[in-house]
Amino acid sequence: MKEWKNLYPKDFRREVREGKWTAPTAGVAPGYAQANLVILPKSVAMDFMIFAQRNPKACPVIDVLEAGVIEAPSAKDSDIRRDVPKYRIYEKGKGYRETASIEEVWEEDFVSFLLGCSFTFESELIKQGIPMKHIDLGKNVSMYKTSIPCKSAGSLTGEMVVSMRPIKSSQIAKAVEISGRYPQVHGSPIHIGNPQAIGINNMEVPDYGDGVPIEGDEIPVFWPCGVTPQSVLMNSGVDFFITHAPGHMFVTDIKNEDLGR
Amino acid sequence: MKEWKNLYPKDFRREVREGKWTAPTAGVAPGYAQANLVILPKSVAMDFMIFAQRNPKACPVIDVLEAGVIEAPSAKDSDIRRDVPKYRIYEKGKGYRETASIEEVWEEDFVSFLLGCSFTFESELIKQGIPMKHIDLGKNVSMYKTSIPCKSAGSLTGEMVVSMRPIKSSQIAKAVEISGRYPQVHGSPIHIGNPQAIGINNMEVPDYGDGVPIEGDEIPVFWPCGVTPQSVLMNSGVDFFITHAPGHMFVTDIKNEDLGR
Repeated sequence: MKEWKNLYPKDFRREVREGKWTAPTAGVAPGYAQANLVILPKSVAMDFMIFAQRNPKACPVIDVLEAGVIEAPSAKDSDIRRDVPKYRIYEKGKGYRETASIEEVWEEDFVSFLLGCSFTFESELIKQGIPMKHIDLGKNVSMYKTSIPCKSAGSLTGEMVVSMRPIKSSQIAKAVEISGRYPQVHGSPIHIGNPQAIGINNMEVPDYGDGVPIEGDEIPVFWPCGVTPQSVLMNSGVDFFITHAPGHMFVTDIKNEDLGR
Repeated sequence: MKEWKNLYPKDFRREVREGKWTAPTAGVAPGYAQANLVILPKSVAMDFMIFAQRNPKACPVIDVLEAGVIEAPSAKDSDIRRDVPKYRIYEKGKGYRETASIEEVWEEDFVSFLLGCSFTFESELIKQGIPMKHIDLGKNVSMYKTSIPCKSAGSLTGEMVVSMRPIKSSQIAKAVEISGRYPQVHGSPIHIGNPQAIGINNMEVPDYGDGVPIEGDEIPVFWPCGVTPQSVLMNSGVDFFITHAPGHMFVTDIKNEDLGR
């Protein structure tokens, strides 16, 4: 498996499509941007795009596939129905089921959105000497539901989900500055310290991902998270939608550096 | 008229609504962002929003009003049907007609888009010592159709329209840096010098606005222009759409500085 990690995005997507890669995508195709995926019927897609425009830190749209289109403009020869290692198909009242392909449920009126992912700024933070503790511990990042209201759009309303990274006090300003240069992958943090102030009462039990311990010289730093759309779409009672499974991202041809400024 | 220019946006919009202001809006409500307006039936609005996502320098969306909504989130108590001093109503095959209100043609499925306007970076350029020649001459900025292709989206396709400002060679780098800090109002230039290279063969006769002479120590500097949507929607054969008339912008409550970084 190891050498697959150094495949170009196009070749990696082919491995996924052929069922040879089913694991999370952290670390694959280094240097290239991975993306959160949201697929919606056209009837609710416009509301979602307006929601994203109003909440760009949580929902930074980096690419859109018109209704029925399966090749992402940002990923040559891709197939949005098969190139994600694990999908979640949500149905109202039923929760979700996970699958390696969505071909059998695909409809011609499905619009697909790709949202920037924190992997991009994480790799830049690491490069500049700020360790990502969850990665060093081999865990998923901790994610929490908050009381921070998103701006509503049409039928869509709900609160922001955040990812949390413990950062040493001496490195927090640097982490803000570096991530702030990547507004298309969530940008700078939304909140630093004081979890209770944003409605997080139990840091040890995240709503998504794994718990990551916070040491004495660290402060929890919270970034807007690409899981927000899943939470908002469920909260808003949308009948049917599809996303990637957490950590199982869509790998684009966009270079990380092209999302920075 | 003079003191009206110093009204707050909300009060200025009321003057417009009551028919007391019918002129171009350059210089009114100083410090507040003015916006280009595009109104479309919902059937084509999604394509337009994707078009804007793919062409953010020409079409920087700063606000969207869901179908049927008349109050812009960025402009308290506004009425998008009446608060622009002059509208253009386009019908396929008929060109456009101008009107002070679009109440009589308004439909519940109209989606309204506000796009950032170069007035915001112009005021910053002037503040920092870079004169805007067209303003000093009391003219509209020169705008040209170009051969620069926009990225297509659904049924929408066409070329970019640019605005041109003559800048002294010694100040061009500074103009790039300052405007580059305002990506939501077109950002940095798309082309500097050599108009022929982007399909402009007669600088003296712009496609929109007024001609502005270029002196020996100046180079023509081209920015993506908010007239691009009008040109693209016409080029793409869209049946019906509404925009502001050039120079007659929608005045928002957003402060110019909040669109910078």
